[in-house]
Amino acid sequence: MISRLYTFVAGKTGEWSVASTKAVIGESLPTAQRLAVVNGPVPALPTGGIWALRGVTSNERYVTRPEKEQLIANQAALGRPEATHAALIPIRKNTAWWALTQDERRAIFEERSHHTHTGLKYLPAIARRLHHCRDLSENEPFDFLTLFDYALADSNAFEDLVAALRATEEWKYVEREIDIRLVCG
Amino acid sequence: MISRLYTFVAGKTGEWSVASTKAVIGESLPTAQRLAVVNGPVPALPTGGIWALRGVTSNERYVTRPEKEQLIANQAALGRPEATHAALIPIRKNTAWWALTQDERRAIFEERSHHTHTGLKYLPAIARRLHHCRDLSENEPFDFLTLFDYALADSNAFEDLVAALRATEEWKYVEREIDIRLVCG
Repeated sequence: MISRLYTFVAGKTGEWSVASTKAVIGESLPTAQRLAVVNGPVPALPTGGIWALRGVTSNERYVTRPEKEQLIANQAALGRPEATHAALIPIRKNTAWWALTQDERRAIFEERSHHTHTGLKYLPAIARRLHHCRDLSENEPFDFLTLFDYALADSNAFEDLVAALRATEEWKYVEREIDIRLVCG
Repeated sequence: MISRLYTFVAGKTGEWSVASTKAVIGESLPTAQRLAVVNGPVPALPTGGIWALRGVTSNERYVTRPEKEQLIANQAALGRPEATHAALIPIRKNTAWWALTQDERRAIFEERSHHTHTGLKYLPAIARRLHHCRDLSENEPFDFLTLFDYALADSNAFEDLVAALRATEEWKYVEREIDIRLVCG
């Protein structure tokens, strides 16, 4: 049984080696040697643990039916054997974003920032899973955690994808973003 | 400082007296004498506590800017001195609902079920606060908890409101609903 809850534990153990931890916007997170992706809750940090972030997969908030069909037809699940590279990108949006109405957020997200459309261009090479944190409790440090994975040969494509998203109108509402790069083994 | 998290504790104490607990759809909840509305977490049930439900206030998921402006212009906050009657209505929607895309859910919610439009007709008499539970953890018993309050003179209006909502296409996706009526004192 797959839980909707995922916990990302940074420390001395875990399947991913942390290649870099970079604050893109706002305050960074302490750098760890390794990262474990746990499908479920982690009640206490393990020995050597530095931080843990958690999020739940949930219903999509912006995609239309045709967009969802395109995603389903093209996307890959995380965990392909060739996906030896990964990135965990926690972001937090500002209060101005959350004060917008659904139609306003959709217009910025897709009609003007082309978020889904941009992601589609990199499928199936770049796989992703989005975890929501904002409504897990009242004071979560981030709103979303996205875990991406890809093959070494698609590293440049991944750089293009994150650069394209960071240049959008949507990203003007991001007040904190950390880019944690991971390699297998 | 007001927390986004609210905990509803049923038992022997609390500001509301429980007049009735009725399962509208699916399994009921045990009946208690009183209900406490706590702004924040409740780590353990108090002595005599029977159950606790929790939810967070969050951004609206469906309203457009004109609808939000109409709500803001007309709605009252909970807690008016004359609002001696209240209802806590926990609901859970089925997996078919959560598999819909945003545009499909919006069409059912408003264009076909007129959820916000119906609520607006009862403002400011019926005040409400919506609490989200679905993304608090992976296994919450309900998706939403709505707390309403109103004056005795508006009791019939409240019955009309809940009857109107329960007759909608949106409500075909509700798989569990409990209607807990409360009176002050």
